[in-house]
Amino acid sequence: MSLQAPWRLTAAEALPLLREDKLTVTDYVKSLLERVQARDPEVKAWVWIEPSLILQQAKELDGLSASERGPLFGLPIAVKDVILTKDMPTQYNSRLYESETPIAIDANCIITLRAQGALIFGKTSTTEFASSKQGNWHQNLTRNARDSKRTPGGSSSGSGAAVGDYQVPIALGTQTGGSIVRPASFNGGYGFKPTHGAISREGLAQWSPSLDTLGFFGRSVDDFEVLAAAFRLNDAEVASSEAFKLQGAKIGFCKTHNWPKAGQGTIDAMAKAQKILTAHGAQVDDVELPGDFSRVLDWHADVLVGEGQTSFLGQYLLDKDKLHESIQGYVDNSRKLTHRQLLDAYDNVARLRPAFDELARNYDIIITPSVVDEAPLGLENTGDMSFCSMWTILHVPAINLVGFEGANGLPIGLTAVGPRYTDRKLLRVAKAIGDVFEAEGGWVADPL
Amino acid sequence: MSLQAPWRLTAAEALPLLREDKLTVTDYVKSLLERVQARDPEVKAWVWIEPSLILQQAKELDGLSASERGPLFGLPIAVKDVILTKDMPTQYNSRLYESETPIAIDANCIITLRAQGALIFGKTSTTEFASSKQGNWHQNLTRNARDSKRTPGGSSSGSGAAVGDYQVPIALGTQTGGSIVRPASFNGGYGFKPTHGAISREGLAQWSPSLDTLGFFGRSVDDFEVLAAAFRLNDAEVASSEAFKLQGAKIGFCKTHNWPKAGQGTIDAMAKAQKILTAHGAQVDDVELPGDFSRVLDWHADVLVGEGQTSFLGQYLLDKDKLHESIQGYVDNSRKLTHRQLLDAYDNVARLRPAFDELARNYDIIITPSVVDEAPLGLENTGDMSFCSMWTILHVPAINLVGFEGANGLPIGLTAVGPRYTDRKLLRVAKAIGDVFEAEGGWVADPL
Repeated sequence: MSLQAPWRLTAAEALPLLREDKLTVTDYVKSLLERVQARDPEVKAWVWIEPSLILQQAKELDGLSASERGPLFGLPIAVKDVILTKDMPTQYNSRLYESETPIAIDANCIITLRAQGALIFGKTSTTEFASSKQGNWHQNLTRNARDSKRTPGGSSSGSGAAVGDYQVPIALGTQTGGSIVRPASFNGGYGFKPTHGAISREGLAQWSPSLDTLGFFGRSVDDFEVLAAAFRLNDAEVASSEAFKLQGAKIGFCKTHNWPKAGQGTIDAMAKAQKILTAHGAQVDDVELPGDFSRVLDWHADVLVGEGQTSFLGQYLLDKDKLHESIQGYVDNSRKLTHRQLLDAYDNVARLRPAFDELARNYDIIITPSVVDEAPLGLENTGDMSFCSMWTILHVPAINLVGFEGANGLPIGLTAVGPRYTDRKLLRVAKAIGDVFEAEGGWVADPL
Repeated sequence: MSLQAPWRLTAAEALPLLREDKLTVTDYVKSLLERVQARDPEVKAWVWIEPSLILQQAKELDGLSASERGPLFGLPIAVKDVILTKDMPTQYNSRLYESETPIAIDANCIITLRAQGALIFGKTSTTEFASSKQGNWHQNLTRNARDSKRTPGGSSSGSGAAVGDYQVPIALGTQTGGSIVRPASFNGGYGFKPTHGAISREGLAQWSPSLDTLGFFGRSVDDFEVLAAAFRLNDAEVASSEAFKLQGAKIGFCKTHNWPKAGQGTIDAMAKAQKILTAHGAQVDDVELPGDFSRVLDWHADVLVGEGQTSFLGQYLLDKDKLHESIQGYVDNSRKLTHRQLLDAYDNVARLRPAFDELARNYDIIITPSVVDEAPLGLENTGDMSFCSMWTILHVPAINLVGFEGANGLPIGLTAVGPRYTDRKLLRVAKAIGDVFEAEGGWVADPL
């Protein structure tokens, strides 16, 4: 160990210490619990956390012999409260599910994590059923880890804030529009949304099955390597055995048709990123998306509405008055979306997926905005998803990279994307780029 | 009422009697329970059924005033044991989930049914996690409702047999390959797989999210009209207000590229169906699918394997020795499928979906085989899904129509399909066609 408090460790730093008994799981979680106690009355990232359950799990893990210790041995993981955990309640920030009683089943991703030695730490706040309309909270208005007057982003609000605030090294989130990448950017951390379908969604709240994707928050790209191995993410093609080098790399910059929405912080971050990468010898090109891509955000909106109509029918019939009016509106189809329009959205986006993959294969990686700008002031509105939605519906892996700062001294991330099922390659390249962004961009994932 | 025993009623027949107090829910379920008691020691459709719980629900429903009675008031529904029910265990026919303890949550479809007055009757047998390999059972070898030496089909084995055997009017099933249409055909009942995505899959076992579809077993097409209304199924286009008439209707017959597999029973059924419809004045044309469609079954197989690899990772890590070797094989990727092949399957099928819709819009309905032939002898192998898989992966609504008989006097169904999101139109046309098939084909859904 070192003089550093354990709560400051990233997952990739903590795991070897835990495995080699240089840090006990119990000491690690005690340190994290101290951080939670000190900070969470301000941040309010957690909707359910029980120290005695954490310490009990830690004790059991500490009792395992070296051969019984899985690859995630002792790793504390926060879980967005739309994911089933057999020993903790799951409440979806919904008045329909207010309960202290756990639903006695783990989501498939939780089974996978526990089977490899992870310690499920607690449940983090979400907007209602992970949807993203303003005021879509009936409890627990989480605050940004960097500025308590600002939103942490949503819908994975607590996961983004808890990791950004060092209360836990890793958190699970879900992304249907921009619910991982946006809170990662707002709280100054890394966020990784893998290829759609690469991780089981059994046991997650269902809003839009064509879009809902499980992903992660961490404070280093190395952390995601660990999780990618745990979930056995595999690329479509065998990776090159050569190490990735920025010198001579081909990097695309894609402003997207949404660029007019970009604020000064994001405009500056994109320009600075381009300069940094060029200075390191990368070939940087602007990526122009064909005209059809200008319609992707509309198709994304249609899929959200069309699938929301189906997904929330049960809860609506149970007691519609307990649902936020935006969710009632999906079931009532207040937007008058027809299934003809939904099918058009499906078929058009399905056509663009291989087209984007082909385009993206011309680059080692594509850099694109994560957010409009810094986290806005206020807590009710969790921000704008429009720079993220395209990557979600194209099903491609996306990672928020840390590195830049806005006018108010708050973090601004950029997103790296690649073709579908290039998750491992994306992480490898993102690691190199993230390192230079952190070194030269003005913001680091570990500011303390 | 009549002299007919209540257990013989279809859902559409029972509902008005229940609503108008001509039959109490208690008397209805008592009659069904007598049927279960008399027949299920032979058929073995149920894996969990508790008369006291059924009678308790019936008593509560009978206590409701007329205004409190929902559209499904008192309707007993069997539930395939891969669907979560808060008051009954869910065991997936898996050694990992052997338990008498319910997981305290209802699947979204169960919430929807209960909220409208349905009575959840019990859990019906399935192959392990609804997969369809030979010998994929560790308990409860269900028998065909018509011949106990034969398979009821799978994976919705108990649901198909229970409805075919009059033990319950309606059962829920799931279809990933042919798991609704095949058992419906084998047990001589109707089976309806709606458009993929039209009903929430939250709370269903996940094998292949691109394919898994909730659907129904019943003994009349009218029963599915009731359920389609309960789940608010809506078509892509507004339906014509004219009543459907066979005279002058345009009906396609599609043998598919799989036709060489058809046995004599299915060959004869297709020929007889064509004659009957022609005699009623319909214009009957052969539908030739373009060459690309010959590869759909291979793509379907790739998606099953590729998504199975992700879906069963948790259970595999928990205790792989408790999984059937075919499921272990998915996670081990024993077929060496690459994600490149999986993406090719996704993109090719996505291209064919609108192409099939366009082709199918030339007809009022398309008739195609449901099965290779009658239910085969033996219980370990639940039969061949290959005539159903294409419609599952094309996401189109499909309904098994009753009407024909094979060499051993056992039922053979035919499938009616239409474009995506034409479920309501399909039911309307299928009703008319099913009526003439039952009248003139040689098999009726209500043979007793």
